[in-house]
Amino acid sequence: MFRYKITVEYLGSNFVGWQRQLNGISVQEVLENAITSLTKSNVITYAAGRTDSGVHAYGQVVHFDLEKLYQPPALISALNYFLKRTDVIILDCTIVDENFHARFSAKKRSYIYRILNRLSNSIIEHNLAWQIKDPINIQDMIEAKSYLIGTHNFTSFQSKGCYSNSPIKSMDKIDITRAKDIIEIYLEAPSFLYHMVRKIVGNLALVGIGKYKPEKIKEILDAQSREASFSMAPSCGLYLNNIKY
Amino acid sequence: MFRYKITVEYLGSNFVGWQRQLNGISVQEVLENAITSLTKSNVITYAAGRTDSGVHAYGQVVHFDLEKLYQPPALISALNYFLKRTDVIILDCTIVDENFHARFSAKKRSYIYRILNRLSNSIIEHNLAWQIKDPINIQDMIEAKSYLIGTHNFTSFQSKGCYSNSPIKSMDKIDITRAKDIIEIYLEAPSFLYHMVRKIVGNLALVGIGKYKPEKIKEILDAQSREASFSMAPSCGLYLNNIKY
Repeated sequence: MFRYKITVEYLGSNFVGWQRQLNGISVQEVLENAITSLTKSNVITYAAGRTDSGVHAYGQVVHFDLEKLYQPPALISALNYFLKRTDVIILDCTIVDENFHARFSAKKRSYIYRILNRLSNSIIEHNLAWQIKDPINIQDMIEAKSYLIGTHNFTSFQSKGCYSNSPIKSMDKIDITRAKDIIEIYLEAPSFLYHMVRKIVGNLALVGIGKYKPEKIKEILDAQSREASFSMAPSCGLYLNNIKY
Repeated sequence: MFRYKITVEYLGSNFVGWQRQLNGISVQEVLENAITSLTKSNVITYAAGRTDSGVHAYGQVVHFDLEKLYQPPALISALNYFLKRTDVIILDCTIVDENFHARFSAKKRSYIYRILNRLSNSIIEHNLAWQIKDPINIQDMIEAKSYLIGTHNFTSFQSKGCYSNSPIKSMDKIDITRAKDIIEIYLEAPSFLYHMVRKIVGNLALVGIGKYKPEKIKEILDAQSREASFSMAPSCGLYLNNIKY
């Protein structure tokens, strides 16, 4: 048996999410179908992050086992051939140790959240960013995000149905930048709670439009309660960016 | 009669270009159909730039005349209703003087050209950027573009079928920036020759990958001959950005 680690990009808009579901097409299903088309065997794939419906990935990491040895460049080409006309593409492949696990071996994850901040709708950014029409002051968001850096109990930014053992997480970095009407929020941590990025962005956005003062983010964090925050950014602006091992 | 000036965004991938053609759907046709659906009259629209097939627009400007007076916000909403499920959207509308002409009154045009510079293909940037796999050095491109700034005979960067009276054009600005694997080239001039942006970008890209020295761009420019340059960047990376009046 050989274990393959692949890096996958996808446009999440037309998927029910990473994980196989009965109610629609998942990234996992599309990817496993491609592997089956190539290898004529049933294969289970494991992803670093189980992205929700509508969430995109610049660099999801997935592992799976095959009986046969493929040279990585040949495997990438062959699988991408079967992935033609899908919204999934394989960017990279390496053969890894049998102890490697895409999810459990991950040391650091990063996400990017894109906000389109302008009055008029966009065709080009439709499904690729969250549109906010009120003017956003990113300086206030930058002040607010500083309360979240470091190790905290992030219960207030967690949704029901979270698989994590503990709500204590270490936020290493949140960078907020603006280029014309696109605001990019980059978040990096060893791991995240369920919906944590979208809840953080949802609340930071309320700071950005002046509905919350920056200190409100500290208040929400300190409450350590799921009831402390209701705002959650939509999935269309979220990108699983990179996984480090 | 009232003359309306509208700003239009579109994703050009599935269009034969701005102008009506027999061989496929044009932006003009989609827009005129929407106006006809609203007004029950046949209307001709005039655009600032007749973009080619596959070229996108962040801010194309178009004018047309209607018998009836519409308040601009209401006209935007009504037309965007009829443009639902198309790749065209109206961003702005103003009522203008009858002497205004989207093309002939334009004082300055800007284009943005997006290059995806990385080895692996992309689903997200597919059709939104020109992928170049060789590593690009933008410092060399920045050196090369300086030869193009100012008033020159741009015949070497012109395609057959150009409607322009003269090949003498004034390039006001070319800015080249990189953010991760996306290189953006911003070009601004009162007007451009047919294919001028794509030919400039095609040649600058050859400088970027080291195939041309920066001075080669001056040589091509000085040749004042369409035969001096063959490289033309594909339409998928080009965006008509903004028109100033």
